Amino acid sequence: MDTTEFRKRGKEMVDYVADYFEQLDKRQVYPDVEPGYLRPLIPDSAPQDPESFEDVLKDVEKIIMPGVTHWHSPYFFAYFPTASSFPALFADILSGGIGCIGFSWAASPACTELETVMLDWLGKMINLPEEFLAGKDGEGGGVIQGSASEATLVTLLAARTRTIRRVQSENPELTEADIMSKLVAYASDQAHSSVERAGLIGGVKIKNIPSDDKFAVRGSALKKVLHEDRAAGLIPFFFCATLGTTPCCSFDRLLELGPICNKENIWMHIDAAYAGSAFICPEFRHLLNGVEFADSFNFNPHKWLLVNFDCSAMWVKTRSDLTNAFKLDPLYLQHCHQESGLVTDYRHWQIPLGRRFRSLKMWFVFRMYGVKGLQEYIRKCSNAFRAGVTNRHLKFMFIGLQLFQGSNKLNEALLKSINDARKIHLVPCHLREKFVLRFAICSRTVESVHIQFAWKHISKLATELLKAQDKQQQ
Amino acid sequence: MDTTEFRKRGKEMVDYVADYFEQLDKRQVYPDVEPGYLRPLIPDSAPQDPESFEDVLKDVEKIIMPGVTHWHSPYFFAYFPTASSFPALFADILSGGIGCIGFSWAASPACTELETVMLDWLGKMINLPEEFLAGKDGEGGGVIQGSASEATLVTLLAARTRTIRRVQSENPELTEADIMSKLVAYASDQAHSSVERAGLIGGVKIKNIPSDDKFAVRGSALKKVLHEDRAAGLIPFFFCATLGTTPCCSFDRLLELGPICNKENIWMHIDAAYAGSAFICPEFRHLLNGVEFADSFNFNPHKWLLVNFDCSAMWVKTRSDLTNAFKLDPLYLQHCHQESGLVTDYRHWQIPLGRRFRSLKMWFVFRMYGVKGLQEYIRKCSNAFRAGVTNRHLKFMFIGLQLFQGSNKLNEALLKSINDARKIHLVPCHLREKFVLRFAICSRTVESVHIQFAWKHISKLATELLKAQDKQQQ
Repeated sequence: MDTTEFRKRGKEMVDYVADYFEQLDKRQVYPDVEPGYLRPLIPDSAPQDPESFEDVLKDVEKIIMPGVTHWHSPYFFAYFPTASSFPALFADILSGGIGCIGFSWAASPACTELETVMLDWLGKMINLPEEFLAGKDGEGGGVIQGSASEATLVTLLAARTRTIRRVQSENPELTEADIMSKLVAYASDQAHSSVERAGLIGGVKIKNIPSDDKFAVRGSALKKVLHEDRAAGLIPFFFCATLGTTPCCSFDRLLELGPICNKENIWMHIDAAYAGSAFICPEFRHLLNGVEFADSFNFNPHKWLLVNFDCSAMWVKTRSDLTNAFKLDPLYLQHCHQESGLVTDYRHWQIPLGRRFRSLKMWFVFRMYGVKGLQEYIRKCSNAFRAGVTNRHLKFMFIGLQLFQGSNKLNEALLKSINDARKIHLVPCHLREKFVLRFAICSRTVESVHIQFAWKHISKLATELLKAQDKQQQ
Repeated sequence: MDTTEFRKRGKEMVDYVADYFEQLDKRQVYPDVEPGYLRPLIPDSAPQDPESFEDVLKDVEKIIMPGVTHWHSPYFFAYFPTASSFPALFADILSGGIGCIGFSWAASPACTELETVMLDWLGKMINLPEEFLAGKDGEGGGVIQGSASEATLVTLLAARTRTIRRVQSENPELTEADIMSKLVAYASDQAHSSVERAGLIGGVKIKNIPSDDKFAVRGSALKKVLHEDRAAGLIPFFFCATLGTTPCCSFDRLLELGPICNKENIWMHIDAAYAGSAFICPEFRHLLNGVEFADSFNFNPHKWLLVNFDCSAMWVKTRSDLTNAFKLDPLYLQHCHQESGLVTDYRHWQIPLGRRFRSLKMWFVFRMYGVKGLQEYIRKCSNAFRAGVTNRHLKFMFIGLQLFQGSNKLNEALLKSINDARKIHLVPCHLREKFVLRFAICSRTVESVHIQFAWKHISKLATELLKAQDKQQQ
C-alpha cells in the first residue's frame, strides 16, 4: 500500500467514523451478544495472504459492531464519562503518523516539552498552586499517565521510597524489609479499588478510613486510625484522598486532612479522576480547596474534558520524589542533555518505558475549544442533568437512585429490567448496605431530551415491576 | 464542530500525515533544538476562546516538527524499531471513533473477545505451545499490555503472589512480610532495565545472573546463584529470560534454563520485546525453543510487527495466576456474566483499569498483510541489513559497532560526530567494558540504499576522526 492508497482508505475510515457518530443514537446502546459470540465468526488463524481494506471494513460492521457497548451513545449512563471529541481524534491521527516514542527528552524533544507545557496550561485552568507547575525552573510539574490507577501506584511507590529513606536515616539499624513490613497507606472506604490494588502491588498494608454519613473522610476519622496505628508500631506514609468517589461523588475533606498529613509526614495524593475536570469552572473550584497540602494531584481529562483516552493528568510538587523512586539509567537511554537539569525524561515518572505523543490531544482540544468552550461543556452536562431529573442526591453529573427505599431486591430487579430492555445502560453501586442504581451523564452529545427519556423509561419499568409484584402477592 | 466539519478536517489530517510520510526522508532525522525550545514559542496559558483547525495545524509544522525525532525516517537507526503501518493507522482511527473502555467483558464484549482471539492468532503465528492459547476453554491465554515493562511487572507480581501462597501453605508460621523479605528474582546482566524496575516496584530483591562470552545466560550460571541463595535462606521465585537483549540481541539459553526453573518452582518469564516478531519466520523460530518451560512469554508487535504502539503481546499458561494476584471486584465493575467462567475481564490482567480497543490494530494488520506479508517484511529488514553491512556481529537487525577496537574514547567521539552531523541517528550501548555504537534497522521504509549511505557516512566520519587525531599527535 502506498501513500495514495493510504489517503483514500484513511479518508474512508474518517467517513466511517463520521457515519458512526451520526447514527449513534440509533444503535442499541448495549449489545445482545453472549460470551463467546465472536470466535465462531472469524477464522481460527490469521490469513496467509493479504485481504482487502473493503473486506476488513465490511467485517467491522458485521462482526465488531454487534458486540460493542456504545460508550458515546446519548443513552449510555453507565460507569463514568469517557472523553471523545473531534479535535482529540485529529490529534490522535497526527500522533499515530509521527509515531515517536517519547521516553526521554532526546527521543523526541517536542513530545516531552509540549507535555510539560500542556500540564502547566491545565494546571492553570484549574488554578493549581504554583508549586505543582513546572514553569521555567520549578521543582514540580505534570505528566500524562495512562490512567488514574497508574497515578495512584506511582505516587504510592514514590512515597514508599521517600519514607524508607527518611526512616532509615533516622534509624540506621532498620532494614528496608523491616520498614516495608510496617508501612501503612490509607484511603476512604469509598475509594476506588485501584487504591487497594496499588497497595497490593507495592507490597504495603492499605487500610480504609471510615467515611461519614456524606461518604466523606473527615480529619477526625484519619486521626483516630493514625493514633491506633502509631501505637501498634506501624509507619503511616501515604493517604489517597478522593474528590468525587466512584459510587456517589462524595468529597473527602481536604482542608481537615491536609494539615494532618503534612504534620505526620504522610504523602497526600488526591485522586479526582472524573470529578476533576469540573474544577475548570470557578463555581466548582472550591471543591479543590486544600490541594495546597497535597504532594500530588491527579484527574483524568480523558473522562470529562474531551481529551480521548488515555490522558490522565498528574502533578507533583517535587519531581525528584518520582525520579528517586524509579531512576535507572542504562547507557542506551542516556543522552547528552540529561544532566543539565533542563530536561525531563518522563520514563522516570511512570511504569512503562514507552509513551505516545499524547499531549498533542490536549493541545488540539484546549485550543479548538478554548477554556470558555470547555467550561460551557462541563456546565452543559450539569444543566442537562438538572433539567432532566430533580430533587435527587445530585453532584454535577452523577445520581444515585434508590427508587425502592429499603429494598435492595427490588432495586436489583429494576436494574436488571432496565439493562435487559437495552434502551439505556446503567451500572449499580453499593452505598453501605444499599444497592443503588447509578446514573451518570456520559456522552458528549447527551441533551435534556435523552435524560428525560431515560427518566420516563425508568419510571415506567419501575411501575411495571411494582404491578407485577402486587399481582404475585395477590 | 459538526460531523460535516469533522469529515473535512479529518481528511485534511490524513493528508497531512500522508505528506509527512512522503517527505520523511527529506526531514532531518534528529532535531537541532536545545532543551526548553518549545515554551517560548507558545502562549503561557490556554486560550479563552476557540482557535481554528488551520491555526493549530500551521503550528504543528512551525512548533512541533522542529522538535521531533523522526522515528520512521529511513535514516533512524537508534534504540529499536517502532511499528508503523497504514492498516494500523486505520484501525486506530476506528478505535478512537468507537472510544470504548474495555476493562471488562460487559464494558464492550467485542473489545475483549477480539483481543483474546487475536492473541491466539498471533500465538499460532509464532507456534507457541497450545497451553498459552485461550482456545475455547484453555486455561492460558494472551493479553495486550502497554509495554514489555508492564508485562514483566505483571508477571513478577503474579509470581510473587503465587510463591507467597505456596510458601505460606508449607510454612504457616511465616508472615507475608517474612516471605517478601526473602524473595529473590533474577535476570541476565544484559537484561533490560525494566526488569530491575519491576523488582523495585514489587519490593523484592532482584539479582543479575552473569552472562557468558556471547552475552547469554547459561543454565550453569543460574544454578550457581540459586545454590548460593538457597544456602543463604532466600526464596528464588522469578527468572526473566531475555530473547534479544537490548545491547546486542543475545539469547538466553531457554533449553538449559527452563528445566531448572520448573524444578525449582521458579516462574520463568520470557521477554522477547523486539526480537520476538522474527519468530513468525520458520527460519528464526528455533530461537524460541524452550518456551514450553515458561510460565509467561511476551514480545512487542509494536516494535517489529507493524502494529503501532502500544501493543505488547503477553501470554500466560495459567490465567488464574494473574487474576489471583490482582482481582478486586467492586459492585460497579461486576456484571452478570463474570462468574460463568466464559468471560475474560482484562482489568485483572494488567496495571491500569481502562484500556483502548487495541486488538483492532492487530486484526487490520494481520489481515491486510497476511502472514506471508509480515514474514516478507521481517526478511526484508534482515536482508537490507546484510546487503548494507557485512561481517559484523549480526543478528536479524542489530549490529554492534566498535569501529576503533579497544578505544572507548574514539568510539564515543565517533558517535558524537555521527549524531552531530544529523544525517543519521544512532545510540550507544555498553558491552561489558566496551562502548559500542548500536545500529538498528528501524523504519518500515528502510532499504539497502539507506543502509549503504549510512555505512559510507560512518566510514567517512571515522576516517576524518582518525586524520584529526593523527594531526593532533604530530
